Amino acid sequence: MFTGLSAFPLTPLVNGQVDETTFVSLIETLAAARVDSVAALGSTGSHAYLSREQRARVTTLAVQAAGDIPVITSIGALRLEEMLDIADDAQRAGVSGLLLAPLSYQPLSQEEAYRLYERVARAVSVPLCIYDNPATTGFTFTPELLQAVARLPNVGSVKRSPSGTTLAQMREEIATLRRDIPATVTIGASADPKAISALLAGADTWYSVAAGLWPHDSRALAQAALRGDEARTAALNASFEPLWALFRHHGGLRVIAAAAELTGRVAAPCLPEPLQSLQGDARAQLQRVLAEHDYR
Amino acid sequence: MFTGLSAFPLTPLVNGQVDETTFVSLIETLAAARVDSVAALGSTGSHAYLSREQRARVTTLAVQAAGDIPVITSIGALRLEEMLDIADDAQRAGVSGLLLAPLSYQPLSQEEAYRLYERVARAVSVPLCIYDNPATTGFTFTPELLQAVARLPNVGSVKRSPSGTTLAQMREEIATLRRDIPATVTIGASADPKAISALLAGADTWYSVAAGLWPHDSRALAQAALRGDEARTAALNASFEPLWALFRHHGGLRVIAAAAELTGRVAAPCLPEPLQSLQGDARAQLQRVLAEHDYR
Repeated sequence: MFTGLSAFPLTPLVNGQVDETTFVSLIETLAAARVDSVAALGSTGSHAYLSREQRARVTTLAVQAAGDIPVITSIGALRLEEMLDIADDAQRAGVSGLLLAPLSYQPLSQEEAYRLYERVARAVSVPLCIYDNPATTGFTFTPELLQAVARLPNVGSVKRSPSGTTLAQMREEIATLRRDIPATVTIGASADPKAISALLAGADTWYSVAAGLWPHDSRALAQAALRGDEARTAALNASFEPLWALFRHHGGLRVIAAAAELTGRVAAPCLPEPLQSLQGDARAQLQRVLAEHDYR
Repeated sequence: MFTGLSAFPLTPLVNGQVDETTFVSLIETLAAARVDSVAALGSTGSHAYLSREQRARVTTLAVQAAGDIPVITSIGALRLEEMLDIADDAQRAGVSGLLLAPLSYQPLSQEEAYRLYERVARAVSVPLCIYDNPATTGFTFTPELLQAVARLPNVGSVKRSPSGTTLAQMREEIATLRRDIPATVTIGASADPKAISALLAGADTWYSVAAGLWPHDSRALAQAALRGDEARTAALNASFEPLWALFRHHGGLRVIAAAAELTGRVAAPCLPEPLQSLQGDARAQLQRVLAEHDYR
């Protein structure tokens, strides 16, 4: 389930309330495009900005709208108890997997992060994906911790941004990680601009922001990279490059939210306060990119 | 109210529940020592790890136990709506001030942080202290943003760790900041090991972790520094130096929690999972420091 293309849709808001009709239509588009999994309420889906009740409701809608496509959801919260409650809600709603970064107000020590994953992994009954995301957690996994956490029960995947920049570096990085973690744990790449190279370098999964809005093109790209077709991958990736440039500069979330707004897929503003989608010159630049490329 | 010595007590937990009797006795000690304000549920008070209900209850207990000493509380949370709810609860409980770092799951842009403070400042009726804390927020204020936020209605103080290391650098830093923000906004120093120098360099307030456990010694130190008595300040600060060394290395929270446990002021473990007070060699070192110094 934690393999292939995992699409991270937005959770569009209108005046702080989830626009359920629009959310369901986003999920239906992903299901129709046959992505391998739908990661509703990921970082792109603003999980941390919604109440427990909103998260439970959105998760239920996602599972219903996704049909036979597995749904993953993030259980990130500041409090461990809240994480466990949200995991319960999500499992009752029928998710196939859970996603968790070592989120905390006080950045955790290595031992504290292990304790967090241990508590959660033992409490859940669906597979858990370990999300290594220093930008939101202020936390850096040591290789030893990542190996230890990957050996916990119920852990099914590791999601991270490759640290290498060349294909050779990523090959080395992924091969090393694969040697050190159980064979049942898949390796997935986040950070869309780097993730394609990571797939060519041996990663199993693209945890993709772009696929949440444009699943067809993302799926073609993921499949080319996963079968090792470097020429086709390069050709498809080239059309995404103007987007990746914006992602690198502004982060994926604000760019994809602005793209969804500009293309009328969601009402503007769609992000939870005080977050804002891309504004000003960068938004105008995105509009030009979207006019030149008919992403699907 | 945002001047002098502001003491940040722990919120001791037992099995995830607040140990109310112990908490009240910590607050009573602070009130008896005549600190200038009690900052209950600050970062040291684990605000981010407690439910809205727990925070409302603890705030009420703090206001009652503090008597005529003003109580400040942090309204930090991942969601703006939750921050506003917690601010309402705190004001109903009778706090004299609120504390807010630009907390967010996605680190905020400068403009987003301004929007956050604008929303909160306009919604509250007691003074607000802006908390600049990159370690927990991943956010860095530009000087321009700090000035703009300080000019919002209801803002009464800025709490930050001095970036300078020498007294001269801190004097320059504080004089510059004071020139650029309204005269009604006080400048307070966090990060205990540096805060004493900041007081000598002109800061108005010591937002103090140590004072939450040892208000008498902290008050003597704060008063010496605030009246510019460098010799007396140096002498008093010297006895704290072994603690500051541990604070620098392990952060104030984990050290002060271990000190409270080791001295029997709170039951162990007192921190919310998965956080841990100081363990192992560092804990043994702290125990030696405590045996040599009878901090009060």
